[in-house]
Amino acid sequence: MSYAAPVEQIEFILKHVVPFPDVAGTEKFAEATPETTTAILTEAGKLASNVLAPLNRAGDQTPARLENGKLRSSPGFDAGFRAIAEGGWIGLAADPEYGGMGLPQSLNMAVADMMSGACLSLQLNPLLTQGQIEALEHHASDALKALYLPKLTSGEWSGTMNLTEPGAGSDVGALTTKAERNGDGTYTITGQKIFITWGDSDVTENVCHAVLARLPDGGKGTKGISLFMVPKFIPDEDGNPGVANSLKVVSLEEKMGIHGSPTCVMSYDGATGWLIGQEHKGMAAMFTMMNCARLGVGVQGVGVAEAALQQAVAYAQDRNQMGPIIGHPDVRRMLATARAEIFAARAICLACAASIDMERATDDRDCAARAAFLTPIAKAYGTDVGCRVADTGVQVHGGMGYVEETGAAQYLRDVRITPIYEGTNGIQAMDLVGRKLADGGEAAMRLLDEVSDGAKAAHGDHPELADDVWQASEALREATQDLLKRDVDERFAGAVPYLTAFALVLGGHFHLRAARKGDTAQLALARVFIGRVLPRYAANLAEARAELADLTAISDASLAGGLGG
Amino acid sequence: MSYAAPVEQIEFILKHVVPFPDVAGTEKFAEATPETTTAILTEAGKLASNVLAPLNRAGDQTPARLENGKLRSSPGFDAGFRAIAEGGWIGLAADPEYGGMGLPQSLNMAVADMMSGACLSLQLNPLLTQGQIEALEHHASDALKALYLPKLTSGEWSGTMNLTEPGAGSDVGALTTKAERNGDGTYTITGQKIFITWGDSDVTENVCHAVLARLPDGGKGTKGISLFMVPKFIPDEDGNPGVANSLKVVSLEEKMGIHGSPTCVMSYDGATGWLIGQEHKGMAAMFTMMNCARLGVGVQGVGVAEAALQQAVAYAQDRNQMGPIIGHPDVRRMLATARAEIFAARAICLACAASIDMERATDDRDCAARAAFLTPIAKAYGTDVGCRVADTGVQVHGGMGYVEETGAAQYLRDVRITPIYEGTNGIQAMDLVGRKLADGGEAAMRLLDEVSDGAKAAHGDHPELADDVWQASEALREATQDLLKRDVDERFAGAVPYLTAFALVLGGHFHLRAARKGDTAQLALARVFIGRVLPRYAANLAEARAELADLTAISDASLAGGLGG
Repeated sequence: MSYAAPVEQIEFILKHVVPFPDVAGTEKFAEATPETTTAILTEAGKLASNVLAPLNRAGDQTPARLENGKLRSSPGFDAGFRAIAEGGWIGLAADPEYGGMGLPQSLNMAVADMMSGACLSLQLNPLLTQGQIEALEHHASDALKALYLPKLTSGEWSGTMNLTEPGAGSDVGALTTKAERNGDGTYTITGQKIFITWGDSDVTENVCHAVLARLPDGGKGTKGISLFMVPKFIPDEDGNPGVANSLKVVSLEEKMGIHGSPTCVMSYDGATGWLIGQEHKGMAAMFTMMNCARLGVGVQGVGVAEAALQQAVAYAQDRNQMGPIIGHPDVRRMLATARAEIFAARAICLACAASIDMERATDDRDCAARAAFLTPIAKAYGTDVGCRVADTGVQVHGGMGYVEETGAAQYLRDVRITPIYEGTNGIQAMDLVGRKLADGGEAAMRLLDEVSDGAKAAHGDHPELADDVWQASEALREATQDLLKRDVDERFAGAVPYLTAFALVLGGHFHLRAARKGDTAQLALARVFIGRVLPRYAANLAEARAELADLTAISDASLAGGLGG
Repeated sequence: MSYAAPVEQIEFILKHVVPFPDVAGTEKFAEATPETTTAILTEAGKLASNVLAPLNRAGDQTPARLENGKLRSSPGFDAGFRAIAEGGWIGLAADPEYGGMGLPQSLNMAVADMMSGACLSLQLNPLLTQGQIEALEHHASDALKALYLPKLTSGEWSGTMNLTEPGAGSDVGALTTKAERNGDGTYTITGQKIFITWGDSDVTENVCHAVLARLPDGGKGTKGISLFMVPKFIPDEDGNPGVANSLKVVSLEEKMGIHGSPTCVMSYDGATGWLIGQEHKGMAAMFTMMNCARLGVGVQGVGVAEAALQQAVAYAQDRNQMGPIIGHPDVRRMLATARAEIFAARAICLACAASIDMERATDDRDCAARAAFLTPIAKAYGTDVGCRVADTGVQVHGGMGYVEETGAAQYLRDVRITPIYEGTNGIQAMDLVGRKLADGGEAAMRLLDEVSDGAKAAHGDHPELADDVWQASEALREATQDLLKRDVDERFAGAVPYLTAFALVLGGHFHLRAARKGDTAQLALARVFIGRVLPRYAANLAEARAELADLTAISDASLAGGLGG
């Protein structure tokens, strides 16, 4: 069960597979030299392997709990969080003006990969805090920034995201939490929020809630929503936690996994809040938080997949059934496929991060469009791979995977939240075929050009692999053109398989790049992905292009089981 | 969360899709008239929906536990089990000479589908008892039969299967439990067994353990193993439970799911046993139990999938996010795909059961080969569908699927054992490409002939659907011929995807039959399966035919994450 942070793998992808060298070549990120990169990854790897991974089981077995209304986190989480904070990891990509390191998101996501593989429940806290830092950097007033950013960046305080209400999940615009102007620049916030990750914390001295609420003159739907900073303790004149705000944790959810991460029902009972950004424009600020968090969640999937696979490989080496089972062809197939999918998902996530960095460093519109297009793919495919590999991990363990003592089941239970939160994978896919194809497919086609150019360049060295990737890419191009002609409901019906096909093609592309740069094992891994995983694109495209009419022809009663008449 | 047993669906499949009418046409099963079939399904459906389903949550929340070495089952399980026993359901397919009803396995499996959907943890008890009844009927002496069969058939006593030991899981032949002859016809059994489902019970007055052990002169491997009846209480002269045997439950496993089903570590400390069948030929008897149980586990997958889907549909009708989410194309896609896969898996399981019945009724070798070929497919595909649909159920619920209160997560946690126990799905697939293709592919080709004949017959009514199924079937035929030329390790490397492809083709075949007999919703469902699910066969066949060399070219260290050099 010992986790070894995949430092070398990540470094290889950054160096040879995704355009991180371009990022490091910009003026903004000139500090991200190869030496710094190696040092960052190595140190984060040590923290993940040696400090965080040993906390993971305790987080499952001794869940966070409420004691007289106060949160008690899992054993060791306090020390773990302090180690993350004191290492400066929360502020890795944050503005140096407020104590951050100003390094690229590419490195921040690489670190998140390792930390989430080590201990997902704990890593959620810094991930959400980072999302809030981003939102404040981009949208908050200077006064708010000066007050909150140094504390959040240092990890003295933590941040949360309060979107969901019982009647407002994927439909954020349905929320009913109220904000009222107090006349002194502050606001009064009243309402209930659910599914608030780390909604309270005993590992930080203050908890800063970013809360979506509607002003009396806020219109219906998402356009009338504003975002507020609502701290647990209102900062005093020195910026230290002062009087308690009128908010509380009502209860914690009992969940399938991530027991170490408290999921709170929050009640705001006339709490004092400060506006982040402009009135009625809260969704813009929230999207800043969410986009960062979406990629971060994709990375979580990859991180947990890595940990689950490492454990499965160790078990398969150790477990003897007519020889170590790692030598059995079917077990080897499962492990190799998992390793190939992890590589693909990790490369997609880091490619997305590199695009975000390029956008920020150059303000280039194409980079922005590339980042926006890759984000839902990274989130959905990363988390799908997380679930698939954790499931493989259980299966490789056989009966020992189903009993809790090995920890294989915990990975599966933990990672199962990732295709749901920060926008379900269905929402991601609809974002992809809706908003992200709204440019007439420009961003998609640019990516596909990149894939086919890569295939052409690789043809000399690996003709068969290159042909397979090229064909898949052309089929995807055709399906994209087809999708662009369809109306939105038809697109939505094919959204998830379309996203999956896109991820598979990108995975083939990155494997092909890796095969050209890597060793023989890397080439064999590319063969596994391109020969065994990539072919799934065809069925996904068939589903993406299938008729919506077949779905609507089946009545609700038939879906419920009334068929067979 | 209310479960409605799918009586009409099952009846439709039995009447129109699988050769159950042939079964009912035999002399042996002449009692399985349409009226009896309807009555059986209706009554079992009532029991499942009204008596068993309400116990399911309590089984999860209040797991079976040991209290001073004695088992305490979950609340209500005692009454639930008594209702099953008193309804005569345990003996549905058992020999009338010992109190059974002598009805076909097809009906027994239909009932198992409904009971496992209602409460998997409890249903495991009668399922294993039925397996033991089968083994005794086929292999035990008349004296053993007379003593045990009436009690097991009536459900006064329950039966278990004791194969696994810490060092002997998939490799049963590695077991070390010892048997010694006592000279009076009895044996002394000593050893430890793990993963014993319902290894103790407070819902029956005796627990009958079928234990695999090795006699001093038993050779190595599976050929030196014998099977023994080792009762918890040794029957007295009147056949009532007498003195306690030297065996005990050491501990219960803490598992991911099926908390209501106690999974026991059993210790046999010089316990008294009686031989079942012949010395050193225990595996034959055990296979009788296992084959019945394997199909039964496939059916469990289908049953849980049904329950999970019903709940997801109900939630999707109720949950409003810009309209009820069941109207959202992506949610509808998930639900319709799940419904189509359940139909396919259920038809495969019932087709397998019908073949078993035909084999028993006619002694026909082709029927036997068909049953043997379909068993691993039914087990693996049924349980894969179980996991996939339960996973869909969680996803449709969004965040509410991840919190335990809705019960969606319980279905996923419960069903996750089914691809593991009674032979992992990898073992099933190796059985398929190994033993079940050892006839040179005869049984496989007969099934494929059936599929292509069906496609030809359907061509007039549904040309496009028929063409798709025919093409898939021909591709599978070609892949089968290719596989037959390969050595065993190469076959094993492609075993799981080959099995999956076979299941998809059979699923397409049965959907096509249903489309010809059913209503418009049934036709739409066939379109969903053939248009959206069946196309996966191609990627599966590509994987089945891929080179083993790619898998072995990746070192163990690379699998563990050492790539990127």
